[in-house]
Amino acid sequence: VSDLFWPGDERAGSLMTQSALLDAMVAVEEGWLSTLVEAGIAPAPARATLAGLVTFADVARVAEAAEGGGNPVIPLLTLLRDRIRPTNADAARWLHKGLTSQDVVDTALMLCVRDVLTRVEDELAAQVRTVSALVATHRHTVMAGRTLTQHAVPITFGLKASGWLTGVLDAADGVRAASALPAAQVGGAAGTLSAAAELARVAGTTDPQNVAAGLGGALAARLGLAARPPWPTSRGTVTRIGDALVGCTDAWGRVAADVATLTRPEIGELSEGAVAGRGGSSTMPHKQNPVLAVLVRRAAIAAPPLGATLHTAAALAVDERPDGAWHVEWATLRTLARSTVVAATQTSELIAGLEVDAHRMAATVAGAADALLAERRSVAGADADPDPRTYLGITEALVSAVLARADTYLEGRS
Amino acid sequence: VSDLFWPGDERAGSLMTQSALLDAMVAVEEGWLSTLVEAGIAPAPARATLAGLVTFADVARVAEAAEGGGNPVIPLLTLLRDRIRPTNADAARWLHKGLTSQDVVDTALMLCVRDVLTRVEDELAAQVRTVSALVATHRHTVMAGRTLTQHAVPITFGLKASGWLTGVLDAADGVRAASALPAAQVGGAAGTLSAAAELARVAGTTDPQNVAAGLGGALAARLGLAARPPWPTSRGTVTRIGDALVGCTDAWGRVAADVATLTRPEIGELSEGAVAGRGGSSTMPHKQNPVLAVLVRRAAIAAPPLGATLHTAAALAVDERPDGAWHVEWATLRTLARSTVVAATQTSELIAGLEVDAHRMAATVAGAADALLAERRSVAGADADPDPRTYLGITEALVSAVLARADTYLEGRS
Amino acid sequence: VSDLFWPGDERAGSLMTQSALLDAMVAVEEGWLSTLVEAGIAPAPARATLAGLVTFADVARVAEAAEGGGNPVIPLLTLLRDRIRPTNADAARWLHKGLTSQDVVDTALMLCVRDVLTRVEDELAAQVRTVSALVATHRHTVMAGRTLTQHAVPITFGLKASGWLTGVLDAADGVRAASALPAAQVGGAAGTLSAAAELARVAGTTDPQNVAAGLGGALAARLGLAARPPWPTSRGTVTRIGDALVGCTDAWGRVAADVATLTRPEIGELSEGAVAGRGGSSTMPHKQNPVLAVLVRRAAIAAPPLGATLHTAAALAVDERPDGAWHVEWATLRTLARSTVVAATQTSELIAGLEVDAHRMAATVAGAADALLAERRSVAGADADPDPRTYLGITEALVSAVLARADTYLEGRS
Amino acid sequence: VSDLFWPGDERAGSLMTQSALLDAMVAVEEGWLSTLVEAGIAPAPARATLAGLVTFADVARVAEAAEGGGNPVIPLLTLLRDRIRPTNADAARWLHKGLTSQDVVDTALMLCVRDVLTRVEDELAAQVRTVSALVATHRHTVMAGRTLTQHAVPITFGLKASGWLTGVLDAADGVRAASALPAAQVGGAAGTLSAAAELARVAGTTDPQNVAAGLGGALAARLGLAARPPWPTSRGTVTRIGDALVGCTDAWGRVAADVATLTRPEIGELSEGAVAGRGGSSTMPHKQNPVLAVLVRRAAIAAPPLGATLHTAAALAVDERPDGAWHVEWATLRTLARSTVVAATQTSELIAGLEVDAHRMAATVAGAADALLAERRSVAGADADPDPRTYLGITEALVSAVLARADTYLEGRS
Repeated sequence: VSDLFWPGDERAGSLMTQSALLDAMVAVEEGWLSTLVEAGIAPAPARATLAGLVTFADVARVAEAAEGGGNPVIPLLTLLRDRIRPTNADAARWLHKGLTSQDVVDTALMLCVRDVLTRVEDELAAQVRTVSALVATHRHTVMAGRTLTQHAVPITFGLKASGWLTGVLDAADGVRAASALPAAQVGGAAGTLSAAAELARVAGTTDPQNVAAGLGGALAARLGLAARPPWPTSRGTVTRIGDALVGCTDAWGRVAADVATLTRPEIGELSEGAVAGRGGSSTMPHKQNPVLAVLVRRAAIAAPPLGATLHTAAALAVDERPDGAWHVEWATLRTLARSTVVAATQTSELIAGLEVDAHRMAATVAGAADALLAERRSVAGADADPDPRTYLGITEALVSAVLARADTYLEGRS
Repeated sequence: VSDLFWPGDERAGSLMTQSALLDAMVAVEEGWLSTLVEAGIAPAPARATLAGLVTFADVARVAEAAEGGGNPVIPLLTLLRDRIRPTNADAARWLHKGLTSQDVVDTALMLCVRDVLTRVEDELAAQVRTVSALVATHRHTVMAGRTLTQHAVPITFGLKASGWLTGVLDAADGVRAASALPAAQVGGAAGTLSAAAELARVAGTTDPQNVAAGLGGALAARLGLAARPPWPTSRGTVTRIGDALVGCTDAWGRVAADVATLTRPEIGELSEGAVAGRGGSSTMPHKQNPVLAVLVRRAAIAAPPLGATLHTAAALAVDERPDGAWHVEWATLRTLARSTVVAATQTSELIAGLEVDAHRMAATVAGAADALLAERRSVAGADADPDPRTYLGITEALVSAVLARADTYLEGRS
Repeated sequence: VSDLFWPGDERAGSLMTQSALLDAMVAVEEGWLSTLVEAGIAPAPARATLAGLVTFADVARVAEAAEGGGNPVIPLLTLLRDRIRPTNADAARWLHKGLTSQDVVDTALMLCVRDVLTRVEDELAAQVRTVSALVATHRHTVMAGRTLTQHAVPITFGLKASGWLTGVLDAADGVRAASALPAAQVGGAAGTLSAAAELARVAGTTDPQNVAAGLGGALAARLGLAARPPWPTSRGTVTRIGDALVGCTDAWGRVAADVATLTRPEIGELSEGAVAGRGGSSTMPHKQNPVLAVLVRRAAIAAPPLGATLHTAAALAVDERPDGAWHVEWATLRTLARSTVVAATQTSELIAGLEVDAHRMAATVAGAADALLAERRSVAGADADPDPRTYLGITEALVSAVLARADTYLEGRS
Repeated sequence: VSDLFWPGDERAGSLMTQSALLDAMVAVEEGWLSTLVEAGIAPAPARATLAGLVTFADVARVAEAAEGGGNPVIPLLTLLRDRIRPTNADAARWLHKGLTSQDVVDTALMLCVRDVLTRVEDELAAQVRTVSALVATHRHTVMAGRTLTQHAVPITFGLKASGWLTGVLDAADGVRAASALPAAQVGGAAGTLSAAAELARVAGTTDPQNVAAGLGGALAARLGLAARPPWPTSRGTVTRIGDALVGCTDAWGRVAADVATLTRPEIGELSEGAVAGRGGSSTMPHKQNPVLAVLVRRAAIAAPPLGATLHTAAALAVDERPDGAWHVEWATLRTLARSTVVAATQTSELIAGLEVDAHRMAATVAGAADALLAERRSVAGADADPDPRTYLGITEALVSAVLARADTYLEGRS
């Protein structure tokens, strides 16, 4: 859970790690055993605690044997059966009965993704608070507005930050909507739950089809996921989650772009703040690099093509289980999810520590007053007030509107 | 409105053409004049009908002069002013006052996009009806379920089509949500409406800032767009629309993948149906190519990277107007939007004309019964019913659930 | 040949337009008639001049009828046959005999692409000259080196421009290599030239297979394209051309990024230079936007995903002609090619007109001397020369090496 | 070195792992010490063996401390200095002197990439041999040619495989060209080798600039990399390597697409061959999935967007070290490189084990003779030979040409 190729990766902790996926797959199989028992398909003793039977120490073994079936479920089942059999032969016998590999992998991925979305949503909420405070503090801090890199008209830093806030709130709306999406996948071999229904019949349940039809919802409820008809080739669930994550890195990338620009020494209006051990150089003792902004920009560049891969995979879904388009989702989603979490916390930290140099902003405005007021002069002519600090249009109203939206959002979470 | 490089392009008609964009920009300027007048900023005579003053015949001239300012607004304004001045000098004088180029381009793009979304939503609704009918007709048409290209267990064609229906309904949900997004952009030079507020002051309105703050909502209402704080660098509006469109081509691409596969002569379970002049070959008189499926797959491959470009652009938004990341959106959104509309109608036609060969499906099932029932035998042993047509699990319940969702969707539209 | 959605599009002239594609397809058919005649397959009178028989006025008709067969060849052949028959019934009879649609479309695209590559190579050569001059002029113009947005150590503007030159030369190497790729596609229905060989047999040629085997090379020679075995599903030809074009926009995007940064008023070391009608604003009379840099950045953002689409298409090529993966190439290649040409000439113009403010660079260096020499002090201590202009390391040698590479390149072209 | 999210990952062994990167960075620092000594800049005792001082056990510590500086070099240097100082204070003192972080990371990445390219080239050569054998064996094995999913005219399986061979040879050409690219990065803080030149001066070397100018070539020679002027913002090196890798997955994806199609039970002309533990299902005992083809397709879908990310990064390179565009390359290149190696060996194995059912092919041809000969009848009329096995055009000549190209390639390697 740290990656030399992606500094900051450890910020995502165990989210969507191999270990997390393994635990989630085990949780799915354990939940399924209980579900079969409660439905009257499997006998009561088949219920078992599987958690802990297969652990991180087994990851390599499972992973390496995964290629044979194209996914890690078969080797995982071998291990689980071998280890539960000595104490519970019923569990060993009923393990995975009625499910297919895709049920286990998809549901486990959704469990992992759910945790990611929760974490990202928490960070976004924290950012809403921090950026709101920044907006409130600087709603009267006048600075130069810049368009196409050139001075335009004056704005306030509060207005700029309210734009960041809009982005964060939009992203939070997207993640909130996506949070409802992680669903259990319970379809069996080809999405008909054929084996489960047959098992229900063999078990002598009264209405086998009805019993089988209830299994998906039961497992979903047990795991805290949404219930949905089998979706082995309807991958909108995955793409919409991906889009929501990319929507986050977009919002943060834009903040980072502003920070990277405004910390340039010739502008010097923002800085990431001095933190021990951060922003240094291996050769130049004076440097204070905007390293968080740099790393967030990195994630913002990486994310859109990963989101595109998920869409391409969805578009190529064929038959009742796709021949490669399904398999490409797992690592793509993992990489996108972890880098989003990393960027989330980096952005939170960046915003929380951001130093705003109001004097430098004022100096820029004073020095560029002529340019910043050219529009005003073209409107008001000789009558134009020569003070750029009074040429702020409806900035106040705009800032208030965004702050109000932030308040509503935060109230909706509490 | 036809493109040798993209057969079928004419299906998108005038949607998001150069002409449509030009008309939309003129509509924005016309709406703005009225908005200024009603706000008491411009004098009543400044209201004018601009529609028709600049037409398709001017496209080349405007387009070629667009490079100077980086966008087509300046040359458009020159033409409009020259042509309205003889009859309405006030309108010429007040034209565009208080707006900036980005206001006009973004709002015009949103007008164009709104029409695209409406059109796509209509096609999706039509597809919901057609696919629902297909599901209902074939809910008992047994066919082989296939996973990873191989025979798995039996399904019905109704179930397969219900998967298509889920995809179409998911896409329709996405487009419906996106339909609320197209918003007016009214921010002026740097998103503060500085010039408009100054004009309101000079005009002697009672509360100039308040007057200016109302302009965005007024223009939006006039144009039938959503009102929103200026969003020159908050591009979630654009990316979410893009994602919704890509969500559509994903759903259709998956239908097309199934059709392309099942029309293979060795499978022969589906065909696009014989239509005069379609599916032919320049050399082989016998061929009946699944040309609609082929063209829809084309769009499904093209769309995800275009969506990614919109996200990258959003992530690179900097300052109060981005230095390139804004400009890349226009043509990208145009290409994505038009190809989505083309694929929409091609998919509608494909589904409406689809011929299902139930006999061939039955023959495949009969021939592959041994493989299709292997799972059943492993579950039920000697007790297993040897008729694959009875091994359909909860197919009935699943089909009913999706049909019910479709009904609810259609009721929600009527 | 101008596009409201892509300012500057007219710079690409008729390259890769619908008209160009139409003309190229006609040229292929015309060349094929001659090839058949010379091979002794068709009778001498079947040779005909087809150029001009189908023109821009027919584009819409051909385009709209293209959907039926999935490509424009069938409707084009109908028109050509109808129009040549009155004067040359043999030509009408022999037209397209032995070819398939993909032969015509692919070969025509390659003709169009060849012209694009030639044009891009010319622009790159011009840039090599202009940037070399810039390097030579400013090899002693000291400026601040910047890393991660912060001041690092001094460099010269000549060194920075030599980095641009390296990028341009790398791009030129790529385009030169790609220029050898455009090849004729001559394979017939499934890449075996089955019909052509049969025609050769029927015509009584001595060694029909040998005659047929020579047709591809003959057509290629006639059209000035490379000869290659049929490549209907070996699409490396297309992807490598695409990669070379994206390599160009990468190189220019990097120049544009530097220009956009260094023209920021707070830095002010570069400017695009005042050109009448360029860089203006619709509202702010003072503004001088780096509009060429902005538009080049736009192309650099758009290009990589288009290149990715070509690769995805290549990876999905199946059978003897792909079911959608082929069709997506045409418009993707067109968009990529035209936007590359546009960016090529914009970059050429940007570089040619670039104004370098050596005084401002010197002032930055003087003001930031302390930071720019921190490394030197850490190396040389009290002994460190306090003049940043003498801390340039091996800049001279590096600049000379790149200039020498440029000379070699230019000599290789003359 | 195994990944639950990417079955088969262990095939890439230690290539481009965190451990490999760490070792490579240590090798760069060790090589640099020797280079400084040999240049007369550092004293002879500063030469030291660093290999083994920092190992896999340190990866987490280095990775977690990497965020501070945005890259892993600073924490690596701390460890190296601490561990070499007790035995060689000179080495500790001279470590990294004159280099910058980017020099170390870029050069280390290139060392890793070089090993990847070597491995991929070996696999491609093996494939050239195996596919050539397949072509030779089946040059007379007649099968149905298929275009747009439908039967076209007869081909041979040898011809189809010769198309795969062309793709593999094209990919091999690309990788061979890319193999010359991995270069040392030796530029110091801003690409001028300022510190190294100053150190050379302080050390009293005769011509300090000349001495410094030789360092890059010396380190490159020592490490077996190409020498090149510093390329901190000229990223064509990286994108061209990326393009070559994507060119490989394109070629293999196309093979996999054919295999996945032709192993469909209704077609049944190819199969991956029965290998113990491969292709099985967690529920369906009979299944024999084309799992290698499936996993190769996965890589072919994932690769193009990763290549696009490298291009976008290159296009956004700014200043003398980019603010995020550099950082995104590392993990992107790693993911692309490893998945290419995995797909390489999977493809090699797939081809080597491929089972061709010539009888089934013949049966398809016999059954579809009418369709497959429609073109012939339209050419030759009543005269048409009714045996589809004789309608193969110039297949023989084409196959021979590709085999000859393969021979030439293999000779060029030996």
